[in-house]
Amino acid sequence: MKRTSRDIRTANRYEVLRQIIAASPTSRQELAAATGLSLATIATLVGELLDLRMITEVGFEDSAGGRPRGLVAVNASGGALIGVDIAETYVHVELFDLGLNVLARAEEDVRPGESLPEQVVSHVTAAVGSVVTQAGVEGARVLGVGVSVPGQVDRATGTSEYAPNWDWHEVPLLDLLTEHIAYPLYLDNPLRASAVAELWFGAARGRGDAVVVNLGTGVGAGLILGSALHRGVSNSAGEWGHTTIVLDGRLCRCGKHGCVEAYVGASGIMLTLRELSPDSTLLHPEDQTATIAALARGVRANDPVALKVVRDTVRYLGTGIADLVNLFNPEVVVLSSWVATALGEPLVAEVREAVARHALPRPMAATEIVLSPIPTDPVCLGAATFALEGALQSVGQRNARPSTTNARSRTAPPS
Amino acid sequence: MKRTSRDIRTANRYEVLRQIIAASPTSRQELAAATGLSLATIATLVGELLDLRMITEVGFEDSAGGRPRGLVAVNASGGALIGVDIAETYVHVELFDLGLNVLARAEEDVRPGESLPEQVVSHVTAAVGSVVTQAGVEGARVLGVGVSVPGQVDRATGTSEYAPNWDWHEVPLLDLLTEHIAYPLYLDNPLRASAVAELWFGAARGRGDAVVVNLGTGVGAGLILGSALHRGVSNSAGEWGHTTIVLDGRLCRCGKHGCVEAYVGASGIMLTLRELSPDSTLLHPEDQTATIAALARGVRANDPVALKVVRDTVRYLGTGIADLVNLFNPEVVVLSSWVATALGEPLVAEVREAVARHALPRPMAATEIVLSPIPTDPVCLGAATFALEGALQSVGQRNARPSTTNARSRTAPPS
Ligand SMILES: [Zn+2]
Ligand SMILES: [Zn+2]
Repeated sequence: MKRTSRDIRTANRYEVLRQIIAASPTSRQELAAATGLSLATIATLVGELLDLRMITEVGFEDSAGGRPRGLVAVNASGGALIGVDIAETYVHVELFDLGLNVLARAEEDVRPGESLPEQVVSHVTAAVGSVVTQAGVEGARVLGVGVSVPGQVDRATGTSEYAPNWDWHEVPLLDLLTEHIAYPLYLDNPLRASAVAELWFGAARGRGDAVVVNLGTGVGAGLILGSALHRGVSNSAGEWGHTTIVLDGRLCRCGKHGCVEAYVGASGIMLTLRELSPDSTLLHPEDQTATIAALARGVRANDPVALKVVRDTVRYLGTGIADLVNLFNPEVVVLSSWVATALGEPLVAEVREAVARHALPRPMAATEIVLSPIPTDPVCLGAATFALEGALQSVGQRNARPSTTNARSRTAPPS
Repeated sequence: MKRTSRDIRTANRYEVLRQIIAASPTSRQELAAATGLSLATIATLVGELLDLRMITEVGFEDSAGGRPRGLVAVNASGGALIGVDIAETYVHVELFDLGLNVLARAEEDVRPGESLPEQVVSHVTAAVGSVVTQAGVEGARVLGVGVSVPGQVDRATGTSEYAPNWDWHEVPLLDLLTEHIAYPLYLDNPLRASAVAELWFGAARGRGDAVVVNLGTGVGAGLILGSALHRGVSNSAGEWGHTTIVLDGRLCRCGKHGCVEAYVGASGIMLTLRELSPDSTLLHPEDQTATIAALARGVRANDPVALKVVRDTVRYLGTGIADLVNLFNPEVVVLSSWVATALGEPLVAEVREAVARHALPRPMAATEIVLSPIPTDPVCLGAATFALEGALQSVGQRNARPSTTNARSRTAPPS
């Protein structure tokens, strides 16, 4: 998308708050040094954040020979943010303070056959109500709710264009949620939620260009370019899972053949296991989580079948990640989502070697490959971050229509 | 890379001059509307460009009921820019005015066995001298020389890290050129030169996100993201030619198997022709240009072998471009370089259909696929644009070290 002056001011506001959250307390001088912004710009942005009560003045530090410098810190109790991770089998909700510490959690199971939009909406509504009650925060202090739903999402209209797990098409999810939830709502997908979590709080923080590879049931790459999320012109960038690595290869659930996801997504890995050893005790038919967990235990126990399945998977994964390294020349590739977490560091070590064999030497030399360091659910954290970004984006445009900030709320002021 | 305040000011300066070149004469109000920048920012940037004599005031237009508005236009004679396209078999040099009109051209043949760095440097020196003489411009008016060399380039040090055609490794090309050429010099590669040409003057102008696919002897994708060139952390992004589409497929000159370039680069197309019809009269062994030209004529004459070769090539090309559409979700994919030009609109029409079969519906619906509209050598134009960008980047830092602007010059002021 084209960047306007407003986009740039908003991006700078994100950058300054990101830095304050990471390094509280800090001075305006340190913020200028860390962000590359001028001291005048920093002073303006810090003033805005103070007005919003997102940060507070917390005293002074001596500077060598000069005037004491004012210190600011994040005002953790200045508001609450809610992140919603809608997945195939559960809805997971977390409530955060402004330091992005988890204050409350709720989880609802989504049983097979319970995946109508109205049913999912009622799970979300119940879980959001639960975390607000548990945390004991006043409704007025909730700055927003970020909602992640798998598949293709139109942020501007709040529509789930296509959710592959449930065959949802054109579901007006935010309109449905707005009937039950009074806070500003922001919709996006897990790919972008986990990328923004890495940008603000994880391995992409302070990096210009990073690729966040999601390995789960679905597979994709969240793109951080120029220290900002790259969404593409219709918010569907990052569909690495549906790029081709084996022309005329395995059928993918998208209908094409030879996609990355068909080999390195959870069901692709299960198929590799089934092809190699149809009667393996590692295989839990119809249960991806149990199968991947069994594989991870097998690798630790040097089970030859488990080792071979991971080696075969890494061959595809290394090729696909080398493609990302050659195309984006990122500083870091972060492996995220539950399959990466389950297989852990042994997987990452093999992936590093495989990517080094396939990528060009110059971009390879500049790229680190790491496991996500975020200890909680990165999708909840990222979804809450979208709500935080939404609150920062609306600064100075309080009379704007909510839709221009991609937020929906019954309580938004009239335009 | 991380964007600093200076980067943003520089990007805004590019954007305003780009708009003035495209729409001279124009008013500050029109510039604000076209760029999304505030009128105050526009006034500052226009003032800088006037100070540099890159633009001039050219009168007034009436505005309905208000004060007449001052008009500005590009000052075509305010300076000269030189673009150098170093290719496998030739060195092509063009001299431009500030409206980026070609004032003079020179070409030198690089014969087989004449590809030592010193030999190439002497060709470049001769051709640059020739265009300055032909155009009759004073040396002091030459703002800079942009040089494009194939392969991996370190802009900051002016080094050709690796040029595959000639097996150059770590050649300090700008240091060698600086001994003979007194103008500020800027080094990059054809991928990025043609992308920046499309951004300033071609199909990517005014677009946020665009991918410029280069189809020549080498193959790659210049990336325009957020209206700026995406270089990656070590200036080697865009190596789409060496992403894998056929696991364990054809051997590529990079040493890997199954790369896009091995199928859709000029020698890949020749191999497809040779495999299909070893004795075809379309095949000119050792002459890529003649073979591709013969294929293009064959397609126009409905020659079944030519049609089959193009169809097979489009199968790979459509798959590889669909991968770019799924990953970047661009507004436009531009086909550039000599193979695309030679095969022309019939190729593009088939590519559109093939991409539509392979890309996901949502990003596909947002993407146009077009042939480059630039009528001259886009690499020369882009290289000259790098020199123009270099001149704009150094505004307000005249006492900075030349290396910080990635320019080299014997005549640069001391720091
Ligand atoms: Zn697919
Ligand atoms: Zn290759």
